Amino acid sequence: MIKVLDIRIEKTTSPKEKPDANHLDFGALFTDHMFVMDYDINKGWYNPRIEPYQPLTLDPSAMVFHYGQEMFEGMKAYKGVHNEVLLFRPEKNIERTNKTNDRICIPKIDEEDMLQAIRTFVDLEKDWIPEADGTALYIRPFIIATDPYLGVRPSNTYKFMIIACPVGAYYTEGINPVKIWVETEFVRAVPGGVGEAKTGGNYAASIKAQMKAKERGYTQVLWLDGVERKFVEEVGTMNVFFKIDGEIITPELTGSILAGVTRNSVIELLNQWNQKVTERRITIDEIYEAHKEGLLEEVFGTGTAAVISPVGELNYNGNIITINNNEIGPLSQQIYDTITGIQTGAIEDTFGWTLKV
Amino acid sequence: MIKVLDIRIEKTTSPKEKPDANHLDFGALFTDHMFVMDYDINKGWYNPRIEPYQPLTLDPSAMVFHYGQEMFEGMKAYKGVHNEVLLFRPEKNIERTNKTNDRICIPKIDEEDMLQAIRTFVDLEKDWIPEADGTALYIRPFIIATDPYLGVRPSNTYKFMIIACPVGAYYTEGINPVKIWVETEFVRAVPGGVGEAKTGGNYAASIKAQMKAKERGYTQVLWLDGVERKFVEEVGTMNVFFKIDGEIITPELTGSILAGVTRNSVIELLNQWNQKVTERRITIDEIYEAHKEGLLEEVFGTGTAAVISPVGELNYNGNIITINNNEIGPLSQQIYDTITGIQTGAIEDTFGWTLKV
Repeated sequence: MIKVLDIRIEKTTSPKEKPDANHLDFGALFTDHMFVMDYDINKGWYNPRIEPYQPLTLDPSAMVFHYGQEMFEGMKAYKGVHNEVLLFRPEKNIERTNKTNDRICIPKIDEEDMLQAIRTFVDLEKDWIPEADGTALYIRPFIIATDPYLGVRPSNTYKFMIIACPVGAYYTEGINPVKIWVETEFVRAVPGGVGEAKTGGNYAASIKAQMKAKERGYTQVLWLDGVERKFVEEVGTMNVFFKIDGEIITPELTGSILAGVTRNSVIELLNQWNQKVTERRITIDEIYEAHKEGLLEEVFGTGTAAVISPVGELNYNGNIITINNNEIGPLSQQIYDTITGIQTGAIEDTFGWTLKV
Repeated sequence: MIKVLDIRIEKTTSPKEKPDANHLDFGALFTDHMFVMDYDINKGWYNPRIEPYQPLTLDPSAMVFHYGQEMFEGMKAYKGVHNEVLLFRPEKNIERTNKTNDRICIPKIDEEDMLQAIRTFVDLEKDWIPEADGTALYIRPFIIATDPYLGVRPSNTYKFMIIACPVGAYYTEGINPVKIWVETEFVRAVPGGVGEAKTGGNYAASIKAQMKAKERGYTQVLWLDGVERKFVEEVGTMNVFFKIDGEIITPELTGSILAGVTRNSVIELLNQWNQKVTERRITIDEIYEAHKEGLLEEVFGTGTAAVISPVGELNYNGNIITINNNEIGPLSQQIYDTITGIQTGAIEDTFGWTLKV
């Protein structure tokens, strides 16, 4: 017997006007509806519903405001080449939701329920998926602790919600490599901490380094490990890959790195292409050494927002290196074209990554 | 010229009934009013007001729900022996507020404004301060990021609020020492991170270890450092002190430990008493070694809620030691009596710690 969530749907009576698909800001305009499901320690998850997008009303003592017990996911829905609605590996985001929940003591969500919630919500909002090249509907599932209580313990009540916003093409004039600041003062995460979990505190902790990089003219930071301060971990809010002398290397998941869905997809793609890809610890010194010997071919970040973000420059303690003449490398371009092609149905999906809504 | 905040006050028309001072739960019942002040990047902090305690209304995309940009403080107001209202070192909490704000990119609050906000609010709620021995009014200032925006950056808008709840005596039947689990798997904080800041993410990250300790019959965890995993940092949400062979030792503030107000008060008190107190790094092995040699006299945590919390038992990888026969030590008792005496005006305050509202 397949369990089916009984989702009550209340449609808006005042739909918003759809925005100009050529001028979409990321994360600022939301669709007409939101999915909401409540949790109570005595009832479990209950009352799944889709309502008109509207403000939340919470007690000032709600635990989410004080103790950061909150998690989120990020994924995209695409309008396919045959006008179908496609999700990209939603099961990976759902799996990670429960990993995050486990780490910060939020109750598990049934994986099938969550998938059904996403599908039902996206189907209702499908007219919000922009159709211009490179655009998508960004989907944000999140959970917040709602107990009106001051004291550090797991909340007994939560809200699971899904909201969405149409997002423009990440690259409008071709892919421009970014300049990255190698951060040596601030640390993002450490083994035994919550770096593997997609929880708010990781992002609050990252803002100061990000601002410091921006003030110096850099787009983002490259994080080093918090113990020895020499192993590369992530770039901004993305995973990172290096191509050195033909070999592709990405930091292995040692407990303080977020297991990105795009990271995993890039590895699987490279395996299919019979390209050697190695998950291992790599020091910033090894990268600079490879550059010195002329072996550092490409560097790129991977994430849901940009898919692939080439790195054109690194600044480590004032030592600046330029990568691939500050241009996107052929491998980065090939990966970008293939993954975005699969996401929109333009390239055949031999992996089973896309899911029709 | 003294700048004075123009606080608009709207009193409740339906005051709640005051609770029985002998049966107060911590953190569950709030007073009649709340202080609110807004921030906008173009206006600074504005519209300070006291309103009836009521729910907050926020967009589901409000940044606090997603990226954990939030901070809080905790302090107490006491009804003094001459019926006066006393605050304990509020300037320390205000100073720490801005240290936390700086670390997670929340705009600074004027220190005099914040003190005036606390005093005005506490004065209005003074009938809520319970009078029974050991009771107090717990005051919770906090700030949340309110921009309706998905994307990692500092918010452009915030709410600073103060809420309060009457709290019962922490110890109702004498001070019972607690059993503490030395945590070796999970890590609270690391230098370069946000361990020094009073921000929500630190608390979300701590819950899993706390639950693990409770399942094993322990009240709280003793945190070890995140780099070498051997230096003692904090106990639960408190700072920690050891008395070894007549010397009092507390971990020095190396960047991953919260600078507690009670911690600082204990050090100043011990200095006044000409007791040798040393701030330095101390390993868990050194503590076990001292116990073996019969030199570990007392262990206690310090924090706003309990003031002093004696530790009666430690469990480190299954090695259990009992401290001072599982009784509160004479020094712990003397510190507790003196600080709580000063807080309520029963003992003369030669430090200038208390502030009359």
